[in-house]
Amino acid sequence: MDNKTLLEKLNTLSIEEKIGQLIQLTGDFFEGDMDTVVTGPLKKLGLNTDYNIYNTGSILNITNPEKIIRLQTDYLEKSAHKIPLLFMADIIYGYRTIFPIPIAQACSWNYEEVENAASIAARECYEEGIHVTFSPMVDLVRDPRWGRVMESPGEDTLLAQKYAQSVVLGIQGNNLEGGAVPAHKIAACVKHFAAYGAPVAGREYNAVDLSEHALREYYLPGYQAAIEAGAKLVMTAFNTLNGIPATGNEWLNRNVLRQEMNFDGVLISDYAAIEELIMHGYAEDETSAARLALLAGVDVDMKTAVYANQLKNVITGNDYMLELLNEAVYRVLKLKNDLGLFEDPFRGLQEIVKRSTSSILSDDHKQAALSLTEESVVLLKNENNVLPLSREMKIALIGPYAEENSTLGMWAIKGEETDTINLKTGLLQLVGPDNLSVCRGSYLLPVDARKTFDKYADKLAVETSSEEDLLQEAIRNANEAEVIVLALGESIYQSGEGGSRTNPALPEPQLRLLHELSLLGKRIVLIVYSGRPLILTDVAEKVDAIIQAWYPGTMGGEALANILYGEVNPSGKLAMTFPRSVGQIPVYYNELNTGRPNLKENGSYRFASRYIDEVNEPLYPFGYGLSYTSFEYSLLTVSQKEMKTNESVDIRISVSNTGTYAGKETIQLYIRDKFASVARPVKELKDFKKVFLHSGETKIVEFSVDEDMLKFYGREMEYKSEPGEFEVYIGSSSQETLLSFSFTLLREDQHE
Amino acid sequence: MDNKTLLEKLNTLSIEEKIGQLIQLTGDFFEGDMDTVVTGPLKKLGLNTDYNIYNTGSILNITNPEKIIRLQTDYLEKSAHKIPLLFMADIIYGYRTIFPIPIAQACSWNYEEVENAASIAARECYEEGIHVTFSPMVDLVRDPRWGRVMESPGEDTLLAQKYAQSVVLGIQGNNLEGGAVPAHKIAACVKHFAAYGAPVAGREYNAVDLSEHALREYYLPGYQAAIEAGAKLVMTAFNTLNGIPATGNEWLNRNVLRQEMNFDGVLISDYAAIEELIMHGYAEDETSAARLALLAGVDVDMKTAVYANQLKNVITGNDYMLELLNEAVYRVLKLKNDLGLFEDPFRGLQEIVKRSTSSILSDDHKQAALSLTEESVVLLKNENNVLPLSREMKIALIGPYAEENSTLGMWAIKGEETDTINLKTGLLQLVGPDNLSVCRGSYLLPVDARKTFDKYADKLAVETSSEEDLLQEAIRNANEAEVIVLALGESIYQSGEGGSRTNPALPEPQLRLLHELSLLGKRIVLIVYSGRPLILTDVAEKVDAIIQAWYPGTMGGEALANILYGEVNPSGKLAMTFPRSVGQIPVYYNELNTGRPNLKENGSYRFASRYIDEVNEPLYPFGYGLSYTSFEYSLLTVSQKEMKTNESVDIRISVSNTGTYAGKETIQLYIRDKFASVARPVKELKDFKKVFLHSGETKIVEFSVDEDMLKFYGREMEYKSEPGEFEVYIGSSSQETLLSFSFTLLREDQHE
Repeated sequence: MDNKTLLEKLNTLSIEEKIGQLIQLTGDFFEGDMDTVVTGPLKKLGLNTDYNIYNTGSILNITNPEKIIRLQTDYLEKSAHKIPLLFMADIIYGYRTIFPIPIAQACSWNYEEVENAASIAARECYEEGIHVTFSPMVDLVRDPRWGRVMESPGEDTLLAQKYAQSVVLGIQGNNLEGGAVPAHKIAACVKHFAAYGAPVAGREYNAVDLSEHALREYYLPGYQAAIEAGAKLVMTAFNTLNGIPATGNEWLNRNVLRQEMNFDGVLISDYAAIEELIMHGYAEDETSAARLALLAGVDVDMKTAVYANQLKNVITGNDYMLELLNEAVYRVLKLKNDLGLFEDPFRGLQEIVKRSTSSILSDDHKQAALSLTEESVVLLKNENNVLPLSREMKIALIGPYAEENSTLGMWAIKGEETDTINLKTGLLQLVGPDNLSVCRGSYLLPVDARKTFDKYADKLAVETSSEEDLLQEAIRNANEAEVIVLALGESIYQSGEGGSRTNPALPEPQLRLLHELSLLGKRIVLIVYSGRPLILTDVAEKVDAIIQAWYPGTMGGEALANILYGEVNPSGKLAMTFPRSVGQIPVYYNELNTGRPNLKENGSYRFASRYIDEVNEPLYPFGYGLSYTSFEYSLLTVSQKEMKTNESVDIRISVSNTGTYAGKETIQLYIRDKFASVARPVKELKDFKKVFLHSGETKIVEFSVDEDMLKFYGREMEYKSEPGEFEVYIGSSSQETLLSFSFTLLREDQHE
Repeated sequence: MDNKTLLEKLNTLSIEEKIGQLIQLTGDFFEGDMDTVVTGPLKKLGLNTDYNIYNTGSILNITNPEKIIRLQTDYLEKSAHKIPLLFMADIIYGYRTIFPIPIAQACSWNYEEVENAASIAARECYEEGIHVTFSPMVDLVRDPRWGRVMESPGEDTLLAQKYAQSVVLGIQGNNLEGGAVPAHKIAACVKHFAAYGAPVAGREYNAVDLSEHALREYYLPGYQAAIEAGAKLVMTAFNTLNGIPATGNEWLNRNVLRQEMNFDGVLISDYAAIEELIMHGYAEDETSAARLALLAGVDVDMKTAVYANQLKNVITGNDYMLELLNEAVYRVLKLKNDLGLFEDPFRGLQEIVKRSTSSILSDDHKQAALSLTEESVVLLKNENNVLPLSREMKIALIGPYAEENSTLGMWAIKGEETDTINLKTGLLQLVGPDNLSVCRGSYLLPVDARKTFDKYADKLAVETSSEEDLLQEAIRNANEAEVIVLALGESIYQSGEGGSRTNPALPEPQLRLLHELSLLGKRIVLIVYSGRPLILTDVAEKVDAIIQAWYPGTMGGEALANILYGEVNPSGKLAMTFPRSVGQIPVYYNELNTGRPNLKENGSYRFASRYIDEVNEPLYPFGYGLSYTSFEYSLLTVSQKEMKTNESVDIRISVSNTGTYAGKETIQLYIRDKFASVARPVKELKDFKKVFLHSGETKIVEFSVDEDMLKFYGREMEYKSEPGEFEVYIGSSSQETLLSFSFTLLREDQHE
């Protein structure tokens, strides 16, 4: 449908039909007869009883293709305007083929594979009739207490940008002419605008307070990258930003998002966030909430009756508000048109269902999940090269995660635990049962923890043995083995939305198990399943190796088995700092120097920026991750030590695999602006290259530093570079610099 | 000297003499002959060797009156311009008579006594020849990890304002005609401008990032109150604020401080903060640092050679910078004039020394310290009314603080530990030795902690007994007693500047002692000495009563003895929240509601703003503190439920002492703005009254709510009220509301 026809379509709609396009309901509104709906979901939501559900514009979280066909068919029959429904769902890191959680994916530093994962998730969505998925989430986060760390690409702005771009392209492809979404692709929705990942004290939904500088410098670029990659939708955030709820924030959504960031797609509220403007103390009642949200440019009201019940009041006699309504409706229609729904409201779904040629959970998809998991896992410790294991060794696999299928993370709504290859299965596949014993060892959680899990308590594993029996079995198995592989972790329900923890540690029963096993004098390889960086400082002292598995998805056990036995050489690098203790939070690599940095040569000098009871450094820094092999870097050429703004400094280095295993290395390039009108971080990641090297192989790796990499937000929020000296650090983590040099960005008057 | 004469004086100065007025050196520059100075302090500081020390404008931390007379005499002889030196010193909460630390004073909620304390400190300073003291510090703080919590008035804006005003008036009195400082008073310097109390992760000197809204709403009003009270000086902060070091921040110091806040006094850098602009990555070299600081309006360079060596370069050929220099020098001369130094460079010091009629450590002064300490101590727990003790009981006083004289806190530079009445002494004075045993019980700190204390390690008590011997003695004493009084705490060197702690808990050896004693089944009264809220959650379960003593100053032991035995009824209320765990930090009472508050009726509902492993509430909330008696409130009258902007809502309540002890109650009035264009806190302290009531007595207490109490900073930083509904909560803490009602602020169009 061309734009003119679309506008004509818009003009044929009644006010009620227009408002309907901005409403998102769940599928149960369309089940049964109208009496059932009125007394059921309609009443529950508080919708006016005269609300015509056949005006509703979109449906949330229906993921059954037959049902989608039925609902769309019924809707098109009964709606007067014949505008197809949009089906949207929370498909975050896989539909049925579940990939590692986003924080893990970010640790792969392999954004081709991240894009491929998103592409597969979108393909499976497409085949199930979903039009829009609420991904990517690119909320920068520096606080591991927050539960949604698992859904985020971590603490770094560049990684957030790469992740945003890759996921949007994977889901949506490159927009076609007129903005059409390519066939077999669906629409992406970047979230949560803005700065949802910075709640005070890491407490879910808590207030966010940020300077405009920090907002623009660190938090916004991830969203911007998604928008530049073409994301069709943006979702608002639950939080206040400096006192103003994001969902009612006109400055944020109109001035910044639409005007500055050029976003012209659909802005959808997060779940009930328009209604929550009242609870925030920002809107006095539902009418005011509707007005404030529309003023702020929020197009779709997810899951509340506020727009449905109130927008008519809001626009009555107010031409400006009517204009805003029309704009919002136009954007929704445009999205439907971009998805081709006016031409085919089913997007080929009927044929797919008929043919039964689904790619869901196909071998290709599983292979992609396996590969990304293998790249996402981070080797944190490997003392005396206890890893990789040899097949001749007797291994005792112990721990609540030894046979656990619930390793998909909390936000895999269509993931099936029965699809999971768990660790035991993975090991049996690879090395067989002869040298392997398996036992649980401890409870996953303290017995009294269940009560804190609300409705999820029922999903937790029921412990059937006594803790003592589990421990004794573990000790017996351990004593008969050469190496203990200890599979521990937090419950998936300790992470994710609403999963903020003041003490992000391994659960107590597992710590006791670890302690008891550590007394046996056996070598211990610890595998950590978690949705966030846990505090591992004491734990690390008791084990020989640590593999950070995150929630590794459907193929987790196979990937981990491959890594344990050296079939795959681990290559993940942390996308988020692991603090030494809760008291260091927030700790992140790109901090400011301060006026009194804690210089090593000053020892325990009191008047430095330090703690008196802890070092400043984290346990494992951003960018860190070990390999079974070793790499050497050398600097070959730096094209110039003085650079004009239209030039670049081109760098060639050679990287050699000097160890005995083939493996991948992520070479990281950090820049420090030594002096600026706004103090700049001690280092900032500006580029990286992940390369594969056979044992003994050397490759040339090239980087190019241009002016864009030197820009920052000045005092007046102008985005610019400033002439002067820059340090470049190249290395294998944010802490380990292997090469460095400095160059000067010339002033304009030095250009000749 | 009138202003015209002062300006003429300014115009007679050479550039070198002008710059000299902006330099602050230590006294050792004026010791010995010029050769010694050149090879000693001059060289050490990096001053140009041609620098004429007899141009220097002020001297830091010389506190010996004879020396001050000698230096001033020598200086006036040798300086060409004959402008007297200013002597400045860090006298924060007492000169020789040491009052409780500021965070404790804030807990008194008795600002008459706070003012009196400052007045006594100033009097002792005056008698010792000091002209300026670097007090008050009014840096709002929400993070107990930060060491300088001890110097701050805590987390609340109103208390910061009250503290600021009281201390400035105490030190400086009301300015006389032309701005003259009254006789026997000295000049006050409010610090640290701005927001030094909000470093990332509570780490000393770390970056500060705040929205402009939070800065203006919560952090600036304390400084503003000090300026309105007439503070002659402001000190810059060490930290960056949103990337820009406060000491080089033109917007902050010129636009906000000078223009908006109308400050026309002397702006002095914190210790070496101008030089540190380089380390911040903000100034490229010393010339640039000098230029940026002068541009930012910093008048005096404390303790570095930057202004001395560089200002001449900075102003050469630049009329604007010369004008700024002249302004800065003028302000320094004006300060000297306000202090009457042109009339008497010694401010009567020669007569004071001659007469030897010092009031230092006089009975009056000690009595004032005693009284303020008694009001500052906070009773946190008193189960089964174990307190007050009776004189017939056998008491075992145990703990490293039982006989500790080092209870003055780290910033009492002229305090003498030998003046301290420690707890043992206090108890012996009051109840004699018959029913009292005293022992140390444990080490103050772990043995290996000493290495973290830098040069202060030498000041720590040397432990001479074994830990086991101390413990056994404690157990013996405890077994013979009815009640254990356990005096524990952090070392004064774990607090104060450079004293950030990731784990602000009682030191390990003391926790072990507490644990062992708790096994004896005796009643335990815990007294906590600390410079900050410690994490006491586990500790509180093991004891029957907790007295938060802070660092109680010279008269601490006497005050605590009086409280223990009920001679004085405790009345302190917390000026800062005590978190349940480090993972809750920052936790403060005036938080925002969020869109999903954790409503009690929802139980453990997951999708609320909460933690899954900890309650949201702190251990002890802001405003909390127990008494030996009980109080009942009743609401008598509320003048009106609808208020115009020029009106007030007048409230009369009656408060009755329904218990058996006389005592003081602090009645706290909190307001909540239910809906506003910027979400407002769940409650904000807006007024309070501390009243004394005999047992059985009832008093009428009046409050008046006016429009000023309803104002906040809007989106465009306009300070305003908004019409609508307000809740008023009156109670004995921020959590315990005893009375409440709501009223409506009318719109302008409703005024008729």
